[in-house]
Amino acid sequence: MKNKLMAEFFGTFWLVFGGCGSAVLAAGVADVGIGWLGVSLAFGLTVLTMAFAVGHISGGHFNPAVSLGLMVAGKFDSKELLPYWVAQVIGAIAAAVVLYTIVSGAPGFEGVGGFASNGYGEASPQGYSMMSALIIEVVLTAFFLIIILGATSAGAPAGFGPIAIGLGLTLIHLISIPVTNTSVNPARSTGVALFADGPALSQLWLFWVAPLVGAALGGLIWKAMSTDD
Amino acid sequence: MKNKLMAEFFGTFWLVFGGCGSAVLAAGVADVGIGWLGVSLAFGLTVLTMAFAVGHISGGHFNPAVSLGLMVAGKFDSKELLPYWVAQVIGAIAAAVVLYTIVSGAPGFEGVGGFASNGYGEASPQGYSMMSALIIEVVLTAFFLIIILGATSAGAPAGFGPIAIGLGLTLIHLISIPVTNTSVNPARSTGVALFADGPALSQLWLFWVAPLVGAALGGLIWKAMSTDD
Amino acid sequence: MKNKLMAEFFGTFWLVFGGCGSAVLAAGVADVGIGWLGVSLAFGLTVLTMAFAVGHISGGHFNPAVSLGLMVAGKFDSKELLPYWVAQVIGAIAAAVVLYTIVSGAPGFEGVGGFASNGYGEASPQGYSMMSALIIEVVLTAFFLIIILGATSAGAPAGFGPIAIGLGLTLIHLISIPVTNTSVNPARSTGVALFADGPALSQLWLFWVAPLVGAALGGLIWKAMSTDD
Amino acid sequence: MKNKLMAEFFGTFWLVFGGCGSAVLAAGVADVGIGWLGVSLAFGLTVLTMAFAVGHISGGHFNPAVSLGLMVAGKFDSKELLPYWVAQVIGAIAAAVVLYTIVSGAPGFEGVGGFASNGYGEASPQGYSMMSALIIEVVLTAFFLIIILGATSAGAPAGFGPIAIGLGLTLIHLISIPVTNTSVNPARSTGVALFADGPALSQLWLFWVAPLVGAALGGLIWKAMSTDD
Repeated sequence: MKNKLMAEFFGTFWLVFGGCGSAVLAAGVADVGIGWLGVSLAFGLTVLTMAFAVGHISGGHFNPAVSLGLMVAGKFDSKELLPYWVAQVIGAIAAAVVLYTIVSGAPGFEGVGGFASNGYGEASPQGYSMMSALIIEVVLTAFFLIIILGATSAGAPAGFGPIAIGLGLTLIHLISIPVTNTSVNPARSTGVALFADGPALSQLWLFWVAPLVGAALGGLIWKAMSTDD
Repeated sequence: MKNKLMAEFFGTFWLVFGGCGSAVLAAGVADVGIGWLGVSLAFGLTVLTMAFAVGHISGGHFNPAVSLGLMVAGKFDSKELLPYWVAQVIGAIAAAVVLYTIVSGAPGFEGVGGFASNGYGEASPQGYSMMSALIIEVVLTAFFLIIILGATSAGAPAGFGPIAIGLGLTLIHLISIPVTNTSVNPARSTGVALFADGPALSQLWLFWVAPLVGAALGGLIWKAMSTDD
Repeated sequence: MKNKLMAEFFGTFWLVFGGCGSAVLAAGVADVGIGWLGVSLAFGLTVLTMAFAVGHISGGHFNPAVSLGLMVAGKFDSKELLPYWVAQVIGAIAAAVVLYTIVSGAPGFEGVGGFASNGYGEASPQGYSMMSALIIEVVLTAFFLIIILGATSAGAPAGFGPIAIGLGLTLIHLISIPVTNTSVNPARSTGVALFADGPALSQLWLFWVAPLVGAALGGLIWKAMSTDD
Repeated sequence: MKNKLMAEFFGTFWLVFGGCGSAVLAAGVADVGIGWLGVSLAFGLTVLTMAFAVGHISGGHFNPAVSLGLMVAGKFDSKELLPYWVAQVIGAIAAAVVLYTIVSGAPGFEGVGGFASNGYGEASPQGYSMMSALIIEVVLTAFFLIIILGATSAGAPAGFGPIAIGLGLTLIHLISIPVTNTSVNPARSTGVALFADGPALSQLWLFWVAPLVGAALGGLIWKAMSTDD
């Protein structure tokens, strides 16, 4: 269990440090900045790399919604749910602390601003409503779970799971950064919300509720569609 | 059969929701938008991810032209063609409905505009003629089928099909978004045409005819070139 | 042999149609265009997709320099060299013809301009000298052959060759489009030079000499470095 | 041993020639330039391609910090450390020489400027402090080693290592180019520092110390987390 929780801690640390770090440090630089395409790639590659590296230790969830969805689909022991959630949230917060320290070394630093946090309404990157945010986070997390459950199922080609899952997270960001800055992961939302300026903390409830509902829905859809015995 | 049609429904939903969704929501945002490169990647990743997830259930077509081309090449039972087409078109329409709902939550929403629909002439992103549109859709769909048939053939390395096919769709978009906004998939064209402003519905015939002709052609070329027994 | 030559014809057609097509149609469009990054990805994905699809038929060269380098390394029968070169060059020319037809349907069409041809001096995208062009084409083709020979050797993991080789060609374009518009492939250079405005035909000699010299060099380096028996 | 050192020489040559070459030649060109996203992809693909090609010969380190971290984790013989370091540094310098020659053929050439060298403070691309540079290089190199050790461990799917490791290096660049221009590799930093204008040589110490400390740390974390016997 210690190894599993270490793997979830470091995997979620990497997801937040790499994904939110690329957004905060590199996305908006003029001319050569990586933009939302680069941030989408970064989030996906955090999962691709750590799922290859430690997936065989912990399963490579790095996300409370993923752990819940796998439990609903009968692929994860409910007794391990709470310890996994704790390791994931602590990993996310630790990454935010280290990222904050690095960002504070920028010339003329005066605060981290949004700090890659998630939001809706005035805090949505393009001003989308709370209803749009709810729908898109539910739908995307449901499909994320279908991809995870399908790509790691007995019928799928062995070994390719981290590619499908990591690039699936890239795709999810390509769609939804303008709407919510993309969560589908309550730990990721929590880690940076603690340090962000603006309404990130007061809006954090949505980025727990919608991903968890979507993940459970994805688990149920997979159970109905799967042909595995 | 129920599982197969569910897989085709959800796969085509994901293709339209992810591909057209990224185009509508994220492509054109100033400075950090994902552009046509991001949209190309998104379309390809919808197929890569769902082919890994549910390819072993339904074959992972998500496209009426693909189903036809596989039938022409003798890899798909003609009795299943119509049910597959129905599931694919319904999945595409359902995705367009959900996407419409999300887009309508944008601030100052006044309509979806082109809604990532396909077109030629005045409705081509760069104004290309109907003849250019016909030729490029036939050629690209033919090669798409050659890639699909080849990468899943007995001689090809096992398990890599979804990577070749998904990134093949990315490549197809990198070439042809300026000409037709890229179809090669009649279901994808139909789903968004029902809701788009402009001539999308009156031009929809081309995005059934050209992909179907191209897919059949690709199936025939593959049969002539293949060394499988 | 007929199947092999068909595979080389269609593979080289796809390389030129997809790579040069993305450059001519989609690279330079304002705001949403795919830029040199998109073109680099497109060239690489043409090889990745067709190497998965028809690599088991012909070996998947699609490039006279690759055929030569494999022959130098003892991996390709010298009797097949000339037929392969002919199929590759005809495939490249056929692709240029189809691409020309599509481009001529653009509004206000007045000629294809550079048509993604290769060049040095005044015809280099950024004005690099003939000497810079020679050096970079030799070096890049040599490494391209090392990657091809290594990734398909007995010691390398089986099946991944098309990924390493295709993304290797993407990398080569990321480096050298500004210098020569990137050849490393005499067939690709020849196909579009026949239709391009400017000095492409009079400079074509360099894009046969440098890739062929580089490929032979790469074959020799690999033979000296390899630990295969 | 000769084959191993050749593989490390050519692999590190390719890393510097491709990664720094794309940055110097193609990153900053107006409108169509590849930006930091393209440079990130290029660095990663140098490792992905050569790890597939020669990884079975030398292990595919191409980086003194990687060799050290593998030694700390008990995966690399300490007797080979110094020869590997020498081959890597010479390969990096040779690449810088060839790149310099090519760049000097640009029209109106007046010097290579920063030449893709690493730096902090005034030499950081966005002016980050020495402390920010130290922290980010240590953290990223530690995770790079966790990815390398995990993805090549007995529990991970076989053959995918070069994908995880190469794209891991892409991710590392997506995060940290703005801070230090990204090193995590003392050989890469040394090769270009010898030819760069500005303070690259006087700051080179940090790009040996931080990657080596981070790599050793990553090796220790992996040993504590791994469930391999």
